[in-house]
Amino acid sequence: MKLATLKDGTRDGKLVVVSKDITRYCAADNIAPTMQYALDNWDEVAPNLEALYRDVEHQTVPCERFHENDAHSPLPRAYQWADGSAYINHVELVRKARNSEVPDSFYHDPLMYQGGSDTFLAPRQDIPLGDTAWGCDMEGEVAVITGDVPMGVSAENAADHIKLVMLVNDVSLRGLIPGELAKGFGFFQSKPSSAFSPVAVTPDELGDAWKDSLIHLPLLVDYNREAFGRAEAGVDATFNLAQLVAHAAKTRNLAAGTIIGSGTVSNKGEDGGPGKPVSEGGSGYSCIAEIRMIETIYDGGPKTRFMQPGDTVKIEMKDKDGHTIFGAIKQEVVQA
Amino acid sequence: MKLATLKDGTRDGKLVVVSKDITRYCAADNIAPTMQYALDNWDEVAPNLEALYRDVEHQTVPCERFHENDAHSPLPRAYQWADGSAYINHVELVRKARNSEVPDSFYHDPLMYQGGSDTFLAPRQDIPLGDTAWGCDMEGEVAVITGDVPMGVSAENAADHIKLVMLVNDVSLRGLIPGELAKGFGFFQSKPSSAFSPVAVTPDELGDAWKDSLIHLPLLVDYNREAFGRAEAGVDATFNLAQLVAHAAKTRNLAAGTIIGSGTVSNKGEDGGPGKPVSEGGSGYSCIAEIRMIETIYDGGPKTRFMQPGDTVKIEMKDKDGHTIFGAIKQEVVQA
Repeated sequence: MKLATLKDGTRDGKLVVVSKDITRYCAADNIAPTMQYALDNWDEVAPNLEALYRDVEHQTVPCERFHENDAHSPLPRAYQWADGSAYINHVELVRKARNSEVPDSFYHDPLMYQGGSDTFLAPRQDIPLGDTAWGCDMEGEVAVITGDVPMGVSAENAADHIKLVMLVNDVSLRGLIPGELAKGFGFFQSKPSSAFSPVAVTPDELGDAWKDSLIHLPLLVDYNREAFGRAEAGVDATFNLAQLVAHAAKTRNLAAGTIIGSGTVSNKGEDGGPGKPVSEGGSGYSCIAEIRMIETIYDGGPKTRFMQPGDTVKIEMKDKDGHTIFGAIKQEVVQA
Repeated sequence: MKLATLKDGTRDGKLVVVSKDITRYCAADNIAPTMQYALDNWDEVAPNLEALYRDVEHQTVPCERFHENDAHSPLPRAYQWADGSAYINHVELVRKARNSEVPDSFYHDPLMYQGGSDTFLAPRQDIPLGDTAWGCDMEGEVAVITGDVPMGVSAENAADHIKLVMLVNDVSLRGLIPGELAKGFGFFQSKPSSAFSPVAVTPDELGDAWKDSLIHLPLLVDYNREAFGRAEAGVDATFNLAQLVAHAAKTRNLAAGTIIGSGTVSNKGEDGGPGKPVSEGGSGYSCIAEIRMIETIYDGGPKTRFMQPGDTVKIEMKDKDGHTIFGAIKQEVVQA
């Protein structure tokens, strides 16, 4: 099924069930008023939400027109947002840009940071930027929302705890990252509020495209209305999302509504080297830091600047028939 | 006023107003069902909660007996938990233990990490430990809960956004820290669920002891029922809690219910060097890592082992008349 949270003036918005083609919705008030409520009581409410989804599909309940602009992030705020780095090609490229090596451990022990989850941006909300020197970048990723996950869960069993899948723009301030990482406590100021796709879907909704806890479809990232990234999310993933959930649960339970991200989706080139831009027939990039590194490798220095007020990003994924699955994240950077 | 959250079988518990001596409570159902609700609507509900607090004090409303064992952490789960390192003496000691220098920037740019906030332990809940090799440690700290804080707030204005004050045991797995910090993304598995004091209080409740966004009272940490730490929380703080809130809000808004921690409370010795144990007349330590470092400095190696199943910790603070302010965090480590 497909779920969304509509803005209604409250902090948590209201949960709605959306049609497969995301043109219609029916409010789920009687079943679960909010997305967090649904996740807190998933076993009980999911069958009723699924039944409502069938009714919405068959148009046997009154529906209203679904506008992506009216949607908040599926969880407008969450109790946990932890982001991994499944696509090691991204890590290799950004480390190369910082002249630092990728340790061996990164290939078997996932990188993951604890993100801020108290205020997410809506999928069509502007990205407020205090200072262009902060080096604003997008990061196109896949994310999952879990139910309750017991401490010490295996990666195999973790897959069963993935309730919903969505997309994310993990906004990053590249100019602040080196200073923060040098302090040793990870990202904080360098990772302001992220935005998620208008619609979150159950894994079964993805059909064959959901395999081994990865989506086997390209992530479509447009930058200033031009194709920028077309990386396959099922390719070059050193870890899948179930493995990232298990990593997060090693020393503690994870509560329902935990969001785990894949890290920036990134493919190697056909020759195993760094991938080419979309304009040169490559799969491109899901963030600006990568193209800057490619420019550095081939041209001796970065040419593409980070995002400035007025720059726009669109992140989306389409099924094999070309229909949008999650709706589109569409954001513009504005001066804060 | 003093507020607590009682366990009632729900994830968020129920908000109660507690008497100053924390022996009685009155449910706040009609004003705010949960602590998060109160924080989300603070300006509207705080005056009503204050009125109920006066009634509880004057015993003009029916009250029930308050048992600290029945309390959950004031926020059983939160949308944000970020922990600073205000007491640079702690940082100096643990860095010395890792043979790493404290960079100059640490004295003007606060250290802060994003913590997991989806599942907090109750103040009297056991600490589940998967493996004693993980090196379980307590960290006694002061924490504040904020209302909505606008991005870019000054430290001066940040003080007004501090709504409640409490204590925290920031459980740390020392054995996992070096590996995680080496990966560069900060703490994750090494910081499992924290526990907070049974009672949270408004800053005015602290009277003269709340000055410059610090509590000027000793933090009482007992380890295995013996005095272990008596560090003054108003002394040797390089940053106060308002400065830490402002640091957190530099690049994004903070939503109501954000918890910001002080970091481990830690005093230098009278001679400016590392402090002495309580048994030798010093102010002792709020975590085991510090005493192990002191042992290393004086005896060539650590003697005190990290926490094992059966070890207990108690964290509390008393006013000048010797009355508990927040109730006591009392926890025992158990095998998970």
